[in-house]
Parts: sequence; C-alpha cells; structure tokens
Amino acid sequence: MQQNVSETSSLSIIVVGASGDLAVKKIFPALFALFCRKLLPASFSCYGYARTPMTDEQFRELLMSRLNCRYTPGESECRMYMEDFLKHCFYTSGHYDSKEDFEALQTLLKRHEPADTPLTRLFYLSIPPFLFLPAAQSLHDAGLAEELPGRKTCRVVVEKPFGRDRESSDALTRGLAQVFTEPQTYRIDHYLGKEVIQNLMVLRFANLIFEPLWNRNNIDYVRICWSEDIGAEGRAGYFDHYGIIRDVMQNHLLQMLALVTMEEPLNLDPENVRNEKVKALRAVRPVRYEDIVVGQYTAADYEGQAQKGYLQEEGVPPDSITPTYAAAVLKVRNRRWDGVPFLMSAGKGLNHRRTEIHIVFRQVPGNIFAGPSATPHPNNLVIRVQPDAGISLNIMTKVPGLRVTLQETELNLSYAAAFAGEIPDAYESLLLDVVKGDKSLFIRADELEAAWDIFTPVLRDLESCRVQPQPYLFGSGGPRSADALAALHNATWE
Amino acid sequence: MQQNVSETSSLSIIVVGASGDLAVKKIFPALFALFCRKLLPASFSCYGYARTPMTDEQFRELLMSRLNCRYTPGESECRMYMEDFLKHCFYTSGHYDSKEDFEALQTLLKRHEPADTPLTRLFYLSIPPFLFLPAAQSLHDAGLAEELPGRKTCRVVVEKPFGRDRESSDALTRGLAQVFTEPQTYRIDHYLGKEVIQNLMVLRFANLIFEPLWNRNNIDYVRICWSEDIGAEGRAGYFDHYGIIRDVMQNHLLQMLALVTMEEPLNLDPENVRNEKVKALRAVRPVRYEDIVVGQYTAADYEGQAQKGYLQEEGVPPDSITPTYAAAVLKVRNRRWDGVPFLMSAGKGLNHRRTEIHIVFRQVPGNIFAGPSATPHPNNLVIRVQPDAGISLNIMTKVPGLRVTLQETELNLSYAAAFAGEIPDAYESLLLDVVKGDKSLFIRADELEAAWDIFTPVLRDLESCRVQPQPYLFGSGGPRSADALAALHNATWE
Repeated sequence: MQQNVSETSSLSIIVVGASGDLAVKKIFPALFALFCRKLLPASFSCYGYARTPMTDEQFRELLMSRLNCRYTPGESECRMYMEDFLKHCFYTSGHYDSKEDFEALQTLLKRHEPADTPLTRLFYLSIPPFLFLPAAQSLHDAGLAEELPGRKTCRVVVEKPFGRDRESSDALTRGLAQVFTEPQTYRIDHYLGKEVIQNLMVLRFANLIFEPLWNRNNIDYVRICWSEDIGAEGRAGYFDHYGIIRDVMQNHLLQMLALVTMEEPLNLDPENVRNEKVKALRAVRPVRYEDIVVGQYTAADYEGQAQKGYLQEEGVPPDSITPTYAAAVLKVRNRRWDGVPFLMSAGKGLNHRRTEIHIVFRQVPGNIFAGPSATPHPNNLVIRVQPDAGISLNIMTKVPGLRVTLQETELNLSYAAAFAGEIPDAYESLLLDVVKGDKSLFIRADELEAAWDIFTPVLRDLESCRVQPQPYLFGSGGPRSADALAALHNATWE
Repeated sequence: MQQNVSETSSLSIIVVGASGDLAVKKIFPALFALFCRKLLPASFSCYGYARTPMTDEQFRELLMSRLNCRYTPGESECRMYMEDFLKHCFYTSGHYDSKEDFEALQTLLKRHEPADTPLTRLFYLSIPPFLFLPAAQSLHDAGLAEELPGRKTCRVVVEKPFGRDRESSDALTRGLAQVFTEPQTYRIDHYLGKEVIQNLMVLRFANLIFEPLWNRNNIDYVRICWSEDIGAEGRAGYFDHYGIIRDVMQNHLLQMLALVTMEEPLNLDPENVRNEKVKALRAVRPVRYEDIVVGQYTAADYEGQAQKGYLQEEGVPPDSITPTYAAAVLKVRNRRWDGVPFLMSAGKGLNHRRTEIHIVFRQVPGNIFAGPSATPHPNNLVIRVQPDAGISLNIMTKVPGLRVTLQETELNLSYAAAFAGEIPDAYESLLLDVVKGDKSLFIRADELEAAWDIFTPVLRDLESCRVQPQPYLFGSGGPRSADALAALHNATWE
C-alpha cells in the first residue's frame, strides 16, 4: 500500500495558496524541518503558487522569516541550512481558476524536474474550500496532475473544512475525484499529527492493562473537551460560515472519539486502521436536538481586558446564530460502549486553552471505605493534548498519617518532562507521511461521510429553526445549560 | 471490637527491655511523637524496665538523646515538650524472670496510676524471644496483668521472632496465652505500619481500575524483593540463630504477599481483614526444596571498602549454614492466582537497599506493533516500600518523533513529592493502634500459624540435610542460581 518516495526519485511540492498564513507559518517550516533532518529526497523542489505577485527572492524572504533552527546542529549552521533549503523554493503567481496560469507553473516545474528519475508531485491546496474544485480542475486542465505509471505519481493534500454538511462534503469529494483518485487524496486533520493523539493507539494496544478496563463495564463516561480563551478574532468572517461544530467537533473531536472507541485493527496497515475508525464512527448515533447545547460568547472583561462579544467581531452579521460553543452527548451503539455517554464540548472565548480526553471510570462497587474523609473518587485517565501534552491517571491513595484518609493523587507522565528533545509539530509528522505515502493519519472518504452523518441532522435543525445560541460571558466556563445536559447523563464537565 | 482508650481514662505503658535499641530508638520516640500530636490521654505514664540499674534521671537522659522535634510547633517549643513528656517517664531495674522485681514495678505503677479512672496497661515486651515467657509469667505472678472488667484492661505487644518454626511458634503462643488472651495480644510486624503497605488495601479496593486486572488472566507473575547492602554486622550472633528466611521472608514478605493476594474483606473491621489474610496465606502451597535457593555472602570489596564475609562476622560459627540470602517461588492455589508464580527474595550484603513489590502483567496478546523499536514490554506496577516510598506504573508510549518507536515510561507517584509534611514512622502508627485497640495491622495467631506452615517444611529440609548456602560476593546481586529458579517460572528478578 505504501508508495515511498525513494532516495533516488525526485519530489516536487506545489503549495497552492503559498502566501497564506498556513503555508508560511506551518507548511514551509515543516518542510524545512524535514529537510534539516534529511527526510526529503536529495532531488526536491518546492513551488509556491498564489495570486500575490512576488519574485522568488521576495517569496524566500517571506518564508525565511518563519523558518526556525530546531533541527540544525547549531545556530551557526542554521543560516546555511536555510539558504540551502530556500534554493529549492520557487514562486509563481496566478489565479486559482486559470488553466493558463497553471500552465506557466507546469513550465516552471518541467524546467527543474530531472527527466530521468521517477517523480512524485505533491499538491498542497492551502486555499479556501470554495477554491478546491476550480484549482483542482485548472491544474488538471494544465496537465499538472497527469500520472505516468512507474514514472510520475501525484498526491493532493487538502484540509478542512470539507463542506458544510454531508451533502456538500460529498459534492466536494466527487469534484476532487474528477482529478485525483481516493488513493491520491490526503485529507489532513492536523490533530491526528499531534503526538499524544498518535500515542492513543500505542497506549491502548501496546499495553495490556487498558484493554480489560476499556468498556462499558468499567467506564462511566468519556469527556472530550476543546477550549480556547480567545475569540474568533481575525478569522471571524470565515468562522461565521461554519461555527464551532463544523470547525472543531465534526473533525478533531470525532477523530479523537474514533481513536478512543475503535476496536484493535488487524495490523497497522493504514487501510485496516481506517476500517476500524469508520466502523467506530458508524456506530455513533447521529446527534439529536436534545443532545446538544449551543452558545455564543458576549462581551466581558477577561483578565483585565475588555473583550468583544462574538456579534461585535468584524465580519460577523449582527444577527448571527453561529455557535462559538457547543456541548453534546454522543452514544456509541455497540457491544463495547452501549450506554456509555461520550460528552464533547468545544468553545471559544472560554476561561482556558485546553484540549483533553478524560476516561472517567465507574465508582468502586461495594466500597468498603466509608466516612467523609474516605470516600473514593472515580479513577480518571486523562490524555492531555494541549498544552503540556501528557497522560495522567488519577488514583485514590491513603494520605500518609495516622488515620485512613483517602486522597486523589496523580500518576503522571508529562511529555516535556519524560522526553528530551523536540516534539515534532503535527505538520512535520503529517507531511512526512504524505511524502512516504503512509495514509494512516489521513481521513478516508468513508470516514468523512460517517463523521458528517453524526452532525448533519442536528446542524440542519439548529439552522433551519434559527435556534438562538445561549449567551455566555467571554472568559466564563460556557453556558450553564451544558451542566444540565451532562447531569442528565449522570456526568459532569470537571 | 475496638476498645478505645478514652480521653478520661489513664494509660500506663510498660516497656520491658527499656534500655535496648528498639526501645530507645523506636518505641519511646514514637510515644513522644504521639504525645506531641496529643494522641495520648492526658493521664499517661511510661515505665521503663530492664536489668541495667538506672535512676529516672539517667533513663530520661538516655531517652532524650533520641527524641526529635518533628511534631512540635517549633524548635523552641521542642525542649518544653520533651521535658513535659519525660516527666511522665519512670524507670525501674529488675530481672525478667523475677516476680519480686516485677512486684517493685507494680508498686511504682500503683503510686502513679489514679485510683478513680479506668486504666489501660500496655506491656511492650522489647526483649529477646527466649525471655517472652519468663517475663510474661513473672509479671503475671506479680499481679501486673490483672484485669478488672470496666476498670482495668491489659494489652501486650510482642515482636518477631515468634519461634523458629510452626512448633516453637505454637509453643510460644500457648505460653503467652497463659497470661494474655488472644484479644489482648498485639503481634507487631512493623512492615504493616509502613505507609505504602497500609496503602496497598486502599490501592486495591478504593480504585476501580485494579480489580479487573488483579488476577491470573492479566498478571504474569509477582515479585516481592527485600535487600540490604549491609551485612549482619552487630546482629550476627542473633541473626545466625534465625537466618534470612525467618528474619524477613516468613513475616514481612509473607505479609506483603497476603495483602497483594487477599480477597476484598467484608469491611474494614480488623477481624474481617485478618480473616481474608489468613485465607490467602492458607492458599499458599508450602515451599518445597526445589522452590528455593539459599545463599551466604562472602568477603569482597564493595564501594571501595573491604567487607567481611558472613562467616567472618563476630558470633557466627565458622561452619554456619545460616542463609543470608534466599529466593523462593510460591504458588497461591485459588481461583484468582492459580498458576501465577510469586517470586520472593531477601538478602543481606547485596548491591542495594530496596524493598519493592512488582506486579508484572502479561505480554500484550496479538501484538500489532512489530519490529525492533516497537516491541511492547509488559506493564509493571511497582510498589516501592523503601527507600523513596511510592507507586509507579510502567506503560508503553510512543516516543515523540516521526516514527513509531515505543518506549517504556513511568507513571509515577513519589510519596515524598506528592505529600507535604511528615510521613509517620511505622511504630507511631502501630503504637497508636495499640492505644486505640485497633488490631487490623497486627498478626493474629492463626495468621502466624499459616505463615509458618509455608516455610516450616523447607526450613526443616535445609537444616536437617545441612544444605550449604551458595556463596555470593558481598555487594553482588546474590547467587546466580536464583536467576535459574526465576527462569524456570518464565520470570526474571529485574
């Protein structure tokens, strides 16, 4: 399945939308990191393509400002590595829907690509989703995506949003499929590149102790929470088209849910891993109106600063009903998880920045420890995605002293403390996988469909009925009714 | 069941053998700690009794040298607390088998004990075991141990060795029972007073996550290891009569085994807890000759110092076959543990000082992670008794980086780091229990019998056949054949 880009073949990386934030701040720095670690083939070139006219030199200046020296042997060598890397970077401007402009890119590519070695072209569509199809079509029409068996292969990387619901997502998938086959298509969810998330499968399947506990008999409920203590800010115009459910829940949080709930795959072959994730997602009951609470932050003072409400953000219509917060309860209808509530919340403008998965175990049955100072709290396995990635397991222990007093203590593993050296950025990890042709961490079309099926009905209900999100103060814990939702399922958010 | 010494009753603590090391270094400092923490009744007195003639003042001087200020509000108050405590301490000298000498003690007691409040007399027999019976008989004959229902109760504390085998232990029990009933008798195993050991029941029964794992399906084997990096030294004469099996394994290590293997008790009532421990010990198959390896340390340089061999220690006969090291494999024949080897080792003159329990889990079945850098190690739950008391759980995690490399990491809880403040000494905890009449942490006669039944046959074999212990160098890891014994059971010592 894996089509590695070998040492001797050449690689062309075409970043469409190369002047944008994602390209400059994430993609090129990640490529530079791979370059420094000698993980790119000797013969590689990067091509920036965007509407802004720029010379190669100007483009390189722009990139250089964001490259960093994490993987160079020392500060002094860094400059040399950068210059070396930037020599492989070229730029050409053009419109995203112009066959002619892409033909100019094709000419540029042909000038650099060696004629006598196998070649991989990797297209990274770092552009707004409404441009995916025009850009794909134009580069196809310009002949850029043409494959030659054994000589030339093409891959395309796209990132969310993949549509606004099941229907528009399907349309996008079908459209892209006109140009790129499913095996050529790499749908990024950058949360899957995060170390702790990649560790989830290791944790579950390379340790004996978790599997016997990992089911409805022992787990009371699961919480998957994402929060930011900033608002929509500069992205408000974009964000308002999507809202928090599409922006965070339908992708990042469902991916985490799939990794928590999936069965053990036959092996680590990417197709087998994704088969299990699809199966897990298909077992999730579509979220109903009564399973969700939506909210929208309002102006407040937070940490000594006056913060705008969402409706005051630039680009947001004054009557917007776009949720900046959502809390939902999901159910996974299979033998392992029947009856276990999966609480999910995501929100902007809250009182902290944190992404965590909590596996909350049941109460100890027939507890023999009694009294106010000796009541056991349920065990809790916490997977901290950010900040301070790590794993901790809360257990009850006896407080040292002359009475039996129980206290919740933490068996803790902090990544920063446990592992010396750099933790790679999610994009480094994912881009290397694209280069290697390893699709484990990319979303397959049927996975995307299953994820949309979970949220599409309730999104339609919320929007067709123009349900007003519940206001919550910027810097608060979110709307109160989320607590009531959790309480309905005998759970809490903290 | 619990007969608390109430605030208004008086307490007389009679330490028989008061000039010995245990009394001066452990018992009186522990009593002082309880005094500082206001855990002794207002009306209490301590009486030292030993052969050495001393005045009260000399005795107080002797005690003061070992008292410490851990629980006094400040350095400056400490002196005041000490003086106050020592005012409650008296001394009288006498022979341990002399009725007349104990009558003099009785006169002293009566002079201080208030006539109008209920009284508890607590006898701590801090003397060599061959003196237990003569001393008990003499203090009985002197009328010291007389009880008056509702007015005067007596308790006796004794510490190992309790005989040399099942038979002599039974004789000792029967002899003591002539003077003190079983409910009056507190058999100390000071390991049971250690915080981490007290925590074992909390860990197992106040946490949901351990019980589903705590059985033959998930546990590969259990290791209970005790080691010292010093030799028999000043105690060699005494030690040679007993050897490491009687000195450490038959008591401390079997107690740990009982706490690891026992079923959950009905409740925390001391009798119920001890019922379960007895049941667990009775399920242990007596150790056979082929289940054990014995060793004796020989002279070697260790950490830059020439160390004597055991046979060169003062008081050790030149042809002694007393083991200073033993390694054994025990089997617990019940539904939970059938087939699980319990490895036990104890040794002096080894290369570290450490007491630990390791619960080693099975290999991951059907492991999907393959390759040299991705083979999971079995999970391991470690209960560190000393030094640096704590708990850790070894799990496999993905090493942050661009490949799937697995590494064993530690979820760790160090007592010193987790709990601010003092960790009480085992004797403080146990003496408070004697004062309170809580017998949970004391060995019941049937428990002692069950423990002896496990080791008595093999001790007899070793001694009647004069089996030569295998020599090992001082400061080494013990005799090699211990590894072979472990390997026979598909286990290792590290």
